[in-house]
Amino acid sequence: MNGAESLVATLVESGVEVCFANPGTSELHLVAALDRVPGMRCVLCLFEGGATGAADAYARMTGKPAAVLLHLGPGLANGWANLHNARRAHAPVINVVGEHATYHMEFDAPLTSDIQSVAGGVSAHVETVATAAELGAAGARAVAAARSGMGQIATVIVHADAAWTDGGVKAPPVAPEPPAPVPEDRIDAAVAALEAGNAMILAGNLAVRKEALILAAAIAAKTGARIATIGRNPRLERGAGTARTERLPNPAGPQTKALKDIRNLILVGETDPVAFFGHPDRPSRTTSPECAILQLADIHDDALGALKALAGRVGATAADAPLEPHDPPALPEGKLTPDTVAAVVGALLPENAVVADESITVGRSMFAATRAAAPHDWIHLTGGAIGAGIPMATGAAVACPGRKVINLQADGSGMYTLQALWTQAREDLDVLTIVWSNRTYKILKDELANVGLPNPGPTALGMLDLGNPPLDWPSLARGMGVEGRRVDTVEAFIDAFRDFVEVKGPRLIEVAL
Amino acid sequence: MNGAESLVATLVESGVEVCFANPGTSELHLVAALDRVPGMRCVLCLFEGGATGAADAYARMTGKPAAVLLHLGPGLANGWANLHNARRAHAPVINVVGEHATYHMEFDAPLTSDIQSVAGGVSAHVETVATAAELGAAGARAVAAARSGMGQIATVIVHADAAWTDGGVKAPPVAPEPPAPVPEDRIDAAVAALEAGNAMILAGNLAVRKEALILAAAIAAKTGARIATIGRNPRLERGAGTARTERLPNPAGPQTKALKDIRNLILVGETDPVAFFGHPDRPSRTTSPECAILQLADIHDDALGALKALAGRVGATAADAPLEPHDPPALPEGKLTPDTVAAVVGALLPENAVVADESITVGRSMFAATRAAAPHDWIHLTGGAIGAGIPMATGAAVACPGRKVINLQADGSGMYTLQALWTQAREDLDVLTIVWSNRTYKILKDELANVGLPNPGPTALGMLDLGNPPLDWPSLARGMGVEGRRVDTVEAFIDAFRDFVEVKGPRLIEVAL
Repeated sequence: MNGAESLVATLVESGVEVCFANPGTSELHLVAALDRVPGMRCVLCLFEGGATGAADAYARMTGKPAAVLLHLGPGLANGWANLHNARRAHAPVINVVGEHATYHMEFDAPLTSDIQSVAGGVSAHVETVATAAELGAAGARAVAAARSGMGQIATVIVHADAAWTDGGVKAPPVAPEPPAPVPEDRIDAAVAALEAGNAMILAGNLAVRKEALILAAAIAAKTGARIATIGRNPRLERGAGTARTERLPNPAGPQTKALKDIRNLILVGETDPVAFFGHPDRPSRTTSPECAILQLADIHDDALGALKALAGRVGATAADAPLEPHDPPALPEGKLTPDTVAAVVGALLPENAVVADESITVGRSMFAATRAAAPHDWIHLTGGAIGAGIPMATGAAVACPGRKVINLQADGSGMYTLQALWTQAREDLDVLTIVWSNRTYKILKDELANVGLPNPGPTALGMLDLGNPPLDWPSLARGMGVEGRRVDTVEAFIDAFRDFVEVKGPRLIEVAL
Repeated sequence: MNGAESLVATLVESGVEVCFANPGTSELHLVAALDRVPGMRCVLCLFEGGATGAADAYARMTGKPAAVLLHLGPGLANGWANLHNARRAHAPVINVVGEHATYHMEFDAPLTSDIQSVAGGVSAHVETVATAAELGAAGARAVAAARSGMGQIATVIVHADAAWTDGGVKAPPVAPEPPAPVPEDRIDAAVAALEAGNAMILAGNLAVRKEALILAAAIAAKTGARIATIGRNPRLERGAGTARTERLPNPAGPQTKALKDIRNLILVGETDPVAFFGHPDRPSRTTSPECAILQLADIHDDALGALKALAGRVGATAADAPLEPHDPPALPEGKLTPDTVAAVVGALLPENAVVADESITVGRSMFAATRAAAPHDWIHLTGGAIGAGIPMATGAAVACPGRKVINLQADGSGMYTLQALWTQAREDLDVLTIVWSNRTYKILKDELANVGLPNPGPTALGMLDLGNPPLDWPSLARGMGVEGRRVDTVEAFIDAFRDFVEVKGPRLIEVAL
């Protein structure tokens, strides 16, 4: 068994079932090992950002670590932005990055670069492996690191000769560090905060999975607190039968307004609410200066355990939680606007869908319109690095066969990683991509006034304009083997949505806004 | 004047005329400054890899530094692969990367990341600027760093409050370090090496510009040495009237064969020839173990000065150099093969064209077929990070109005950064993209045997196959506003080439191989 085979065998033994790949010469032995060692599905992507974004969503939806196979420094860098999102999603992802053979390093061949420096910024665990004998054990440690807490990014940099040399040893799984239990004094503090009044439970990450969020909502109902989430969760179970919660708006102004009366904020699996960007003459925190903030459960803590303990202390049970009814919006009429398209999505969302959301500005109406839709999962852009949507939809579809994946996609960010549509066609993944075609970086237009630039000049406005030439998304999709349609009325959108949800396999709708 | 304005004014004063941009919120003040400070052309790209690859080629073709405006860590990472190529091209590029406001850093907002770690791996100079007063001077230092020697990558990380705060000071240009003069003892050593016989001058980078390469060829002719280049030069002036030189093949096996009789290798602006990748049981060096290697001029040395001194010592003048005649190949007939498509390109290449080459395997016939074509510049993939071609063509066209840019583009690598086609349409750039559609990562298929994997399994072969679904490049191009045509006969290729060279503006031909 060579090193490459020992690594693949170890990953499979440790529960890694899927590898999203963009291999190059330095990874060919790893690719060949996939044929020799059974148990790993390999999904080819045409750009590394597609591979890492898919791995992120796969890991979010299955809870299992996904592997990514990347080609040297440039391959890792191409995948970095979506690894940043995966890091913010606390998704268990294992990067396997090929490196030159050890003895080739000194010659500084053209593709040589400092891979560690690129890996460090996005990985909780980085290991460089120079011999076949160490590769299996390094793989097991990487899986353990990836599965620790809620999840992390682990990167294994594999010298090519470590992969191709005999002497590989399959390693047994290494136990990850589970989410940490929450100490009793924090439960005490949470009880006190709830009793003090003007309280909000802000839940995120592990605390927004269905069971946990229902408990949090029950605690809130029982104590008169508010319960909210922020729109940057890795996976939020929503729709009929899930906990009714507030959504804190993403923009700092409205978020600050929503939080202004809160004096006791209890964070469960969530971090301090702060502005996405600092703005001139505005505080970074969106909470009131008088608001006390209690971190009940940190990201990698056992949020569900903490909520169970807290529920016990305040006498709440799941039955106390207000749940969303099944009450989707009526099909709208009129013009295509963010509100009417949101109503169409809410009305027609298939049961058990996975929504991969990179709507950016257009999506602001979307959350309210789908809250009482059929039950579904919502996976957000977690780290703000755009180009996540199409890859996430791809990974979610690999993770969840039998479920329809709906990708709500802004046009500007969609262009970052459109290559993932090809993988959807190749794997016949059941994804409906809906592109909001406003032909502008609208969020930047909205931000101009926020950063003190109310009167931008023509160059600045030109930098935000995607309309010249207009992007033609059905053509782009067709170029990658995906059928698409452009719609410019509500009726046509409804028809296209119904037609494309009906069939299995990738489809695309461009909605002219 | 705020910090952003002082930076733009300083860059303009220091000779920076073009900025390729993918701005986000943290860069809006820099964008706004482009309207307030005249002198900088701003070119919008839909993905950062397009911006950095365009900047690389612009800098190669003009010798002037190009600026790139990037959004935080993810934006820099998205541009990293083509910055790696620019680093290997020794192109003067200045990255301006927006960072959060200083006071916002502690809150670890979603887009916060370790930008320095990403910048370090690809930059010769990195500076992070926290105040408006320092921004101008930092910009001047970055330009000086970028213009030092042959050229370098400089990165300025700009906190948003440094950009938007008043108190910016436009800084005067800082003198770069010019290419270093070559000491006399190295000229002596080169004379001795040439006299020792079985000598080759291997020229690269600054030594392959027209005047230098003619001198090198004259020295070789006068002394009986061989004269060669490697296919990874930033800018090679070629065609009728340029020096006749050998091209060392890129694959290690043929390169080793070409070098096997050389006992005295004289490097001028070039590095040791080594294999692109280390292979099992093969040496990394492609020179014979008995070959002495003399570094006459390093990359950042004054190669032209060294060649002038050496020519003086051996009594050679430019008139001694064998020059390429104007003798393009005849238009071919028969099937579309790498040889016939190369003959078409050689026959029809317009005078003074710029060829942006990311042909990978298909391009191996191309160099010979164009050596006696009309005079032209050839810009290579320098660092091996694929996804360079379409962006390089974009930047070359911005750099060289009035010249036709021909992008020879492999399909697999073209998919990495296809978004740059949109910029070509937006700026009405005069680029003809020719995609070699073999629907496979053919170079990896070729490499399987080299790395000891002669019998790959179905998974491995599947990872190299781009044919399912087939990419439809004319559709992809149309989706971004570029007219395209697919051809599957030599005659149709000739017709399309003639038609599209005739018109100004971006066009694309997909050649079915």
